[in-house]
Amino acid sequence: MSTLPNNLKKISLFLERLPGIGEKTANRLAFFFLRLPDSDLKDFAASITNLKEKTKFCKNCFNLCESESCDICLDDKRDHSVITVVETVLDLLSFENGDIYQGLYHVLLGKIDPLNHVGPDDLKIEELVSRVKKESNRGGLKEVILATSPDMEGEATAMYVKSQLEKLESYKVKKFKITRLAYGLPIGANLEYADYMTLKKAIEGRNKF
Amino acid sequence: MSTLPNNLKKISLFLERLPGIGEKTANRLAFFFLRLPDSDLKDFAASITNLKEKTKFCKNCFNLCESESCDICLDDKRDHSVITVVETVLDLLSFENGDIYQGLYHVLLGKIDPLNHVGPDDLKIEELVSRVKKESNRGGLKEVILATSPDMEGEATAMYVKSQLEKLESYKVKKFKITRLAYGLPIGANLEYADYMTLKKAIEGRNKF
Repeated sequence: MSTLPNNLKKISLFLERLPGIGEKTANRLAFFFLRLPDSDLKDFAASITNLKEKTKFCKNCFNLCESESCDICLDDKRDHSVITVVETVLDLLSFENGDIYQGLYHVLLGKIDPLNHVGPDDLKIEELVSRVKKESNRGGLKEVILATSPDMEGEATAMYVKSQLEKLESYKVKKFKITRLAYGLPIGANLEYADYMTLKKAIEGRNKF
Repeated sequence: MSTLPNNLKKISLFLERLPGIGEKTANRLAFFFLRLPDSDLKDFAASITNLKEKTKFCKNCFNLCESESCDICLDDKRDHSVITVVETVLDLLSFENGDIYQGLYHVLLGKIDPLNHVGPDDLKIEELVSRVKKESNRGGLKEVILATSPDMEGEATAMYVKSQLEKLESYKVKKFKITRLAYGLPIGANLEYADYMTLKKAIEGRNKF
């Protein structure tokens, strides 16, 4: 490493800080940069320079965007009567990439995780509750889908969010549903390798066929 | 992807062009960038902006550097009487990281590979020959170690380089040695899984014990 030229070394050391990239890979990637056109590198550098300044959270749903509200919230073609609650923007992207959902989102920016000192107040739960309150009072909300991850922390987060939403006056007069993503076997899974908990959930949630 | 903010999307698309990085990983890495301090991002962007302009080949050995000659060639503490011929700067780094070699290098910037249209003239072989000629005439050269890779192209390259060096007057009067890296079992290897060619080379090259 000591013999790498200065800029190349700095790039390699930076890349090494990224998750899943070790010293060898960082070196290899830095060398690959050398082969790319200078204009592409300069564009990339400009994006990085502007990244933190330009990227903001949508004031409504906490998706990432470069203006006040994100494209999803601003899209009139989407179903504004359904809000799916996800942990992270990457989770949101998983839905969007599949083009399987046409409603809105609410990104909590994490999940309740006491071991890592993340409590309900660290997440955008209060913002969700007041958003839901506003929307349901306006009569525009039909359903809140809880799409936190199917692990202990995600489950606890879903339970907590549900309890908060159920306190709302508008929920009490049954104006909107609260649902949770289905559990079961993933498509293409091999029953032989399925874990006990997934199988249990798949049996509990079995459907008429 | 359509919902990613502009700069984040550009970063993700750039990262996707790097070897071994797919769309999901590129997204994950781009999101990680958001968590880094802005000053680190700006330093990284500056390195990328300057990379192509500042990084040059050492005029002597074709290692990468930011001045006329690289640190290795300029280092008086190193043994200037031995030149190790490698294919790439990454190969050079493998030796340097191990701190196992104190001589100089000559980077060919590739290997003879007719299938990919790389011939001897595309490599820094002529430059090696004139360097070796100059150094050996000056009486300062004892050995040239051929450290091209142990595959067909690397072997062909080593053979070719050897033939060119043997044509030199200074070689004919036996002023320097030409050697090749040893073949054999890698340390920690399992004989059971060793390939036939490696075993053959290991037997051929066996040493008194």
